[in-house]
Amino acid sequence: MRDNYLEEYYSFLRFPSVSTDDQYKEKLQECARWLVKKLTSIGLETDLVPTKGHPIVWARNKHQPGRRTVLIYGHYDVQPPDPLELWDSPPFEPVLKNGYVFARGATDNKGQILSHIVGIQETIEQSGDLPVNLHLVIEGEEEIGSVHLGGFLEENRDALKSNVAVISDTGMIARGTPTLSYGLRGVTALEIKVTGPEMDLHSGVFGGAVANPITALAQLLATLHDREGRVAIAGFYDRVNPLEDWEREAWRKLPIDGDKLIPAEINGIGGGYQGRGTKTVIASHAMAKLTFRLVPEQEGDEILKLAKEHLRKNLPKGVTMEITTGHSGPWYLTDPHSPLGEAAQRALRKAFDRDVALIREGGSIPIVSQFRGILGIETLLMGLALPDCRAHSPNENFPVENFEGGIRLNKAVLQELA
Amino acid sequence: MRDNYLEEYYSFLRFPSVSTDDQYKEKLQECARWLVKKLTSIGLETDLVPTKGHPIVWARNKHQPGRRTVLIYGHYDVQPPDPLELWDSPPFEPVLKNGYVFARGATDNKGQILSHIVGIQETIEQSGDLPVNLHLVIEGEEEIGSVHLGGFLEENRDALKSNVAVISDTGMIARGTPTLSYGLRGVTALEIKVTGPEMDLHSGVFGGAVANPITALAQLLATLHDREGRVAIAGFYDRVNPLEDWEREAWRKLPIDGDKLIPAEINGIGGGYQGRGTKTVIASHAMAKLTFRLVPEQEGDEILKLAKEHLRKNLPKGVTMEITTGHSGPWYLTDPHSPLGEAAQRALRKAFDRDVALIREGGSIPIVSQFRGILGIETLLMGLALPDCRAHSPNENFPVENFEGGIRLNKAVLQELA
Repeated sequence: MRDNYLEEYYSFLRFPSVSTDDQYKEKLQECARWLVKKLTSIGLETDLVPTKGHPIVWARNKHQPGRRTVLIYGHYDVQPPDPLELWDSPPFEPVLKNGYVFARGATDNKGQILSHIVGIQETIEQSGDLPVNLHLVIEGEEEIGSVHLGGFLEENRDALKSNVAVISDTGMIARGTPTLSYGLRGVTALEIKVTGPEMDLHSGVFGGAVANPITALAQLLATLHDREGRVAIAGFYDRVNPLEDWEREAWRKLPIDGDKLIPAEINGIGGGYQGRGTKTVIASHAMAKLTFRLVPEQEGDEILKLAKEHLRKNLPKGVTMEITTGHSGPWYLTDPHSPLGEAAQRALRKAFDRDVALIREGGSIPIVSQFRGILGIETLLMGLALPDCRAHSPNENFPVENFEGGIRLNKAVLQELA
Repeated sequence: MRDNYLEEYYSFLRFPSVSTDDQYKEKLQECARWLVKKLTSIGLETDLVPTKGHPIVWARNKHQPGRRTVLIYGHYDVQPPDPLELWDSPPFEPVLKNGYVFARGATDNKGQILSHIVGIQETIEQSGDLPVNLHLVIEGEEEIGSVHLGGFLEENRDALKSNVAVISDTGMIARGTPTLSYGLRGVTALEIKVTGPEMDLHSGVFGGAVANPITALAQLLATLHDREGRVAIAGFYDRVNPLEDWEREAWRKLPIDGDKLIPAEINGIGGGYQGRGTKTVIASHAMAKLTFRLVPEQEGDEILKLAKEHLRKNLPKGVTMEITTGHSGPWYLTDPHSPLGEAAQRALRKAFDRDVALIREGGSIPIVSQFRGILGIETLLMGLALPDCRAHSPNENFPVENFEGGIRLNKAVLQELA
């Protein structure tokens, strides 16, 4: 691998492109413009497509009739870096340690999409062109539910006509084991705010006389699961499909627990005094952030409706509740034994020289359902994230060997799909 | 009331004397030195007594044999001002609006103790001396459980020998209604930290495979109360005494609910992502701050022991828990119909020209039990805090009329006790 690839990777990582936080809006713009410059320089025709949120980067080679058209998708936005105090080095100042690059976005998704870009660059340099017609779509809103990508796909449906999509934004089952993810969980989110007294009150004076919203919130959240950890929302599992026989068989060989429950996740909670020492206060309000992961055939809006009904029914007396629904994305399931799936498996085997693991992923990439629904194409999920990559956590990292593997994978998959 | 009294009050309020937060340590020192200067200037012999925490201010007039000795107690420390965003004006920049002074500590306790100081000042100016021997003790650790005051009382037991203590740090049942509090609740505190995974994890990948500490904490906190809001900790109410008949009678006349339950208060909770938007993460840990208010004959250490047993027994599987115990103070009950109690009622009637309300307070002032236990004296609780004073809350305030009432009260009570 050339020396300057790492330098370019670091430049990409230095943009604090946190899509969920408005204060970084300009940084996302800068990051997108950096991509446009890079893609133009390797010979792709590249547009910066504005949206009502963060812009989309769209690049193409010169398309020729009779060739397969491949859409490679990635995202340049990242999760918030906090809690900052748990990072060993600043999240937007990448460092290389023992062959791993540490930074927010190192794996998710800058490292993976940049390895594709470098693969494309090398193929063009060596052969003057790619073996396929290429669309490269890199968005800035993946971490907030790809809010405006659907509109972009609708608007450019004809121009984006492709045979298949390729994404590297999922996991490898273990280091060195090439992995094809043929299923993804969906996700849907909501935020609860429970309000008791109009303002914080002295708990000695008012304790017992007014409802404590933290107590109420804890009681409410405790109703979400039963004793076995199953979601206790009525109807939550009604649409869940059982696994196929071949899946049970394939999963038995993998070093994972394929039958784990699908919980309701509480991603954050807060209320009252969280500083040092004691503050004898009854908080005015308390909040919690929840996500629900969805599997076939669960439907996000229906799950939100059931969840809201459950929360309203179980809200303790004396407090009020506001529910805000967040982003939502559907589950995805495709056939790894289709001709395209087999091509993907051959490319993975070529790039990593190992048998390919076939898995369903726990994470969510809402966009694959839009590729199917709007563009009518299947997606090949050929992720490069290691189990200990710490995506979404402090000290996120990506091994240089996977960056190199990603370059090989890009070359192999374009050949196989051609 | 003289113009410069308000100026002095504002100067006192401008010290951010937050005792629970170490970063304010020097500000508490400055505040104590300001008091020493003030008390010396009105003719009292005043010492700044160092402790391992914040210093104690101790002032005396010249004691004469044959006179009653009265100990007036107050505190110069305050609660933390947060949440800062809910203050209409900065907490340590006092402002006067519609006859009310707004600032952290305006009521609790700077306004009340300063009105006593001004009362003493005026009596000395008018009569050359007070009608009693006086000890004035103003500490800087009331809001953190009066950690070092007991030691100070033990060490100076003989020098502090008094007939009675007077404190204005409790409430008036309504504006203009003089109130004698003959009972106080005790308090004991603990903090729970529940830990799940070693670090924050991507909830899509790990959700269901590892225990979520926020979910576990919510489930644990939900076990603290039963459906009727009673504390569900085994043995919690075993030592609670029923009310006296005369108390039920007296309370029936008051505009309050005398039979309210004694809950376990959750004063704060926190864990995971609390920022804007969504972060699909399983937090590594979650915490909650709890206090228990104590009534006769509940005992703090025993309640903590019962609470810890309950929490350990009910901790969900897959997480660990650390419990840190905080400050503790016992309940207090005295007889409002004793000769001293009757003198206090006469003084209150004189200062406010209204019938006196006799109540038990919801709040806790641990020090009154130490006055009884160490100095062998009863305490007269003659508070000036209004129900809507917002002590411990944003926009804490104190009416100038109560500052003036406090000056009259100080003069009257020293006369009545003489």
